[in-house]
Amino acid sequence: MKAAILGVGTELLTGLIRDYNAYFLAQRLVERGVLPQFIIFAPDQIEKIVSALQFIMQEEEIKLVIVSGGLGPTEDDLTREAVARAFNRNLVFNSEAWNKIQFFYRQLRNVEPPENNKKQAFIPQGGEILYNERGTAPGFKLQVEDKNIFVIPGVPREAEFFWSLIEKELPQEEENFYRSPVFKFCGIGESNLAEEVRPFLAYLPSSFNIAFLPNYGEVWLYVYSSNYSLEQKELALLFLDKVAHHLDRFFFTPYGDTLEEAVGNMMKEKGLKLGVAESCTGGLVANRITDVAGSSQYFERGYVVYSNEAKKEDLEVPEEILKEKGAVSEEVARFLAQSVRRKGKVDLGLGITGIAGPGGGSEGKPVGLVYIALASEDDIIVQKFHFSGDRLMNKRFASQSALTMVFQCLKEKFDL
Amino acid sequence: MKAAILGVGTELLTGLIRDYNAYFLAQRLVERGVLPQFIIFAPDQIEKIVSALQFIMQEEEIKLVIVSGGLGPTEDDLTREAVARAFNRNLVFNSEAWNKIQFFYRQLRNVEPPENNKKQAFIPQGGEILYNERGTAPGFKLQVEDKNIFVIPGVPREAEFFWSLIEKELPQEEENFYRSPVFKFCGIGESNLAEEVRPFLAYLPSSFNIAFLPNYGEVWLYVYSSNYSLEQKELALLFLDKVAHHLDRFFFTPYGDTLEEAVGNMMKEKGLKLGVAESCTGGLVANRITDVAGSSQYFERGYVVYSNEAKKEDLEVPEEILKEKGAVSEEVARFLAQSVRRKGKVDLGLGITGIAGPGGGSEGKPVGLVYIALASEDDIIVQKFHFSGDRLMNKRFASQSALTMVFQCLKEKFDL
Repeated sequence: MKAAILGVGTELLTGLIRDYNAYFLAQRLVERGVLPQFIIFAPDQIEKIVSALQFIMQEEEIKLVIVSGGLGPTEDDLTREAVARAFNRNLVFNSEAWNKIQFFYRQLRNVEPPENNKKQAFIPQGGEILYNERGTAPGFKLQVEDKNIFVIPGVPREAEFFWSLIEKELPQEEENFYRSPVFKFCGIGESNLAEEVRPFLAYLPSSFNIAFLPNYGEVWLYVYSSNYSLEQKELALLFLDKVAHHLDRFFFTPYGDTLEEAVGNMMKEKGLKLGVAESCTGGLVANRITDVAGSSQYFERGYVVYSNEAKKEDLEVPEEILKEKGAVSEEVARFLAQSVRRKGKVDLGLGITGIAGPGGGSEGKPVGLVYIALASEDDIIVQKFHFSGDRLMNKRFASQSALTMVFQCLKEKFDL
Repeated sequence: MKAAILGVGTELLTGLIRDYNAYFLAQRLVERGVLPQFIIFAPDQIEKIVSALQFIMQEEEIKLVIVSGGLGPTEDDLTREAVARAFNRNLVFNSEAWNKIQFFYRQLRNVEPPENNKKQAFIPQGGEILYNERGTAPGFKLQVEDKNIFVIPGVPREAEFFWSLIEKELPQEEENFYRSPVFKFCGIGESNLAEEVRPFLAYLPSSFNIAFLPNYGEVWLYVYSSNYSLEQKELALLFLDKVAHHLDRFFFTPYGDTLEEAVGNMMKEKGLKLGVAESCTGGLVANRITDVAGSSQYFERGYVVYSNEAKKEDLEVPEEILKEKGAVSEEVARFLAQSVRRKGKVDLGLGITGIAGPGGGSEGKPVGLVYIALASEDDIIVQKFHFSGDRLMNKRFASQSALTMVFQCLKEKFDL
């Protein structure tokens, strides 16, 4: 089955709010084998909502439409009116819905509902009310031609509740669309990955498409199909396995893990521990590592040595080195990595120093220059990077490179 | 002027990727007075991209169309073909574009470009190449009827670069839609804020709408209008000023700053310095503070004391306290805050300890319990929180509460 999602709300079009509902609904639909063909955001204007609905109605393959947002009690909530107009129906007052809204107010807020909430009890003729357990706005369901249309509130918590109602009405076995697990790679670029994959393409059934997705220093690879046999699906998974095996050095997960999760699993498996000393990344590496549940098993401590005093006092970087080589230097990265490894009594110590920008650059040491050192029992690796993004991008890419170095070290040294 | 944004990529429709580009572009367009009327996501399928483009072409008001994504070198990148088909044009090889791609590879990667990059040098007939300074995929510009169509890559860093090119071609003065600056508040909930604002609503011209937007522990307030006089606009801004003045204790910016930026500006103004010792937030507070350019002026150092050893060795938390009170306790938060203040020789020391979850909770100390201490010269404030989200939400809300405490302390103690 194919679906469309229409998000209503001017705030989605002015960039005030980054969409969450459509993203959430798309994930849930795909899990149920239903592929959204279009996601559309329209402003709180009747004609625009109508015109988006008309576009969706023209798409033959689409059988399920979810409209989210614009069901509130205020003047700019126009989705009810727009849906009624798009399908030439009157808005009809539903007294049971009004009772529930009144009940909600009396029960939870101890007040009578304001008069403007009454409009929430109107739904297009022929529609079926869907009651809201997390707020006042009821949703509704409408059958138009061969399409099932669900109209639900835009508040994420409420939209999530309505998904549980929509889900119940989906047919049980939907297998029109299949997306494979995402195979994630780090330390290799998109074109190079594509080049490496090419010789294997003969193994991928022609009913499957392949997708490469560069993602902040990672490349994600998956295959998908809208029309496949079970045998073809197995061949497609075999193809992915072949590719992963061939590119083992760069391949870190088929399970949807983040790089920090994958690295964490490797460390847990070998009982290893890690400490981090960061300057230009300012805590981002520690933050990413500790985003993973259970990271206290392998993450021992971190230092954010932003000032030179902190570098000297906490991690014993010698004054002379800071003077002669500067805080952003290969030597300082080495000291940071070795000191945090020693102080934390850990297996791996990461040291990061660089210039995130926009200020602080010079001719010899431009913004984006970053040294990352990784100390292990018997050696220390230092890499020099030159990133060309803004401050947040430079921090992001530096943290990514640091985690990639840990990943590669674990692969090579610890037989993972 | 009205615009439409078309994001191309199956990953946007399967919930694999949460859109960033359309969100970013919408923000930039609105800042320039151009209101996106529709944002559409279409999959990597030629017919779907064509059908979305045809829908957009029917919308008379729309004069600017930005198509983002699907320009990569791999087989699933079909935007060039789809645009050519939608407007009945041939794809033409552009040798200068190919030279640039080759140059990019040779210069930055020291290799010849893979053969599949060659397709990136094809653009629809009549199009004008737009060169990419951050990647290999060129974009292009096409005039169709009265619409300017920009087709740009989907990699966020690259899309941001192309925005700088698009921006140059926008007309200077556009004033169809006005959204006021967003007035941001922390330390007060949405309904309380709405309650406080109510008495001032009489000052807001009726041509303006008001919006309250709860956002991870902040509440954002703004007004907007599609049809207003200059006098009404001034009155609307005056209304916001009155509200901000009335709620000064909670109001942190009308300039779009993040809370960490606002706090940073306050510290710079008073020449104050800050140090952070975090356990359960794992570096997130330091990371947020150092996301701000120039934060090295007031952020001295941070500790991520994840293990008890780190708490003892780096911040002198006594063994007895850890044993008797536990690592998650008011006492430990106090030690962390005071020790980092003393070690960093800073004005303010933040100490955070808690249980981010999902593991580590107990009956007396459930997941989500967090103590935050803020030490200043003459006293120390400790607050106890109980958050009820998942791990990332608990980290996020704890960091938000910590920054809110710094904000409130600066307001009260330092006459800001």
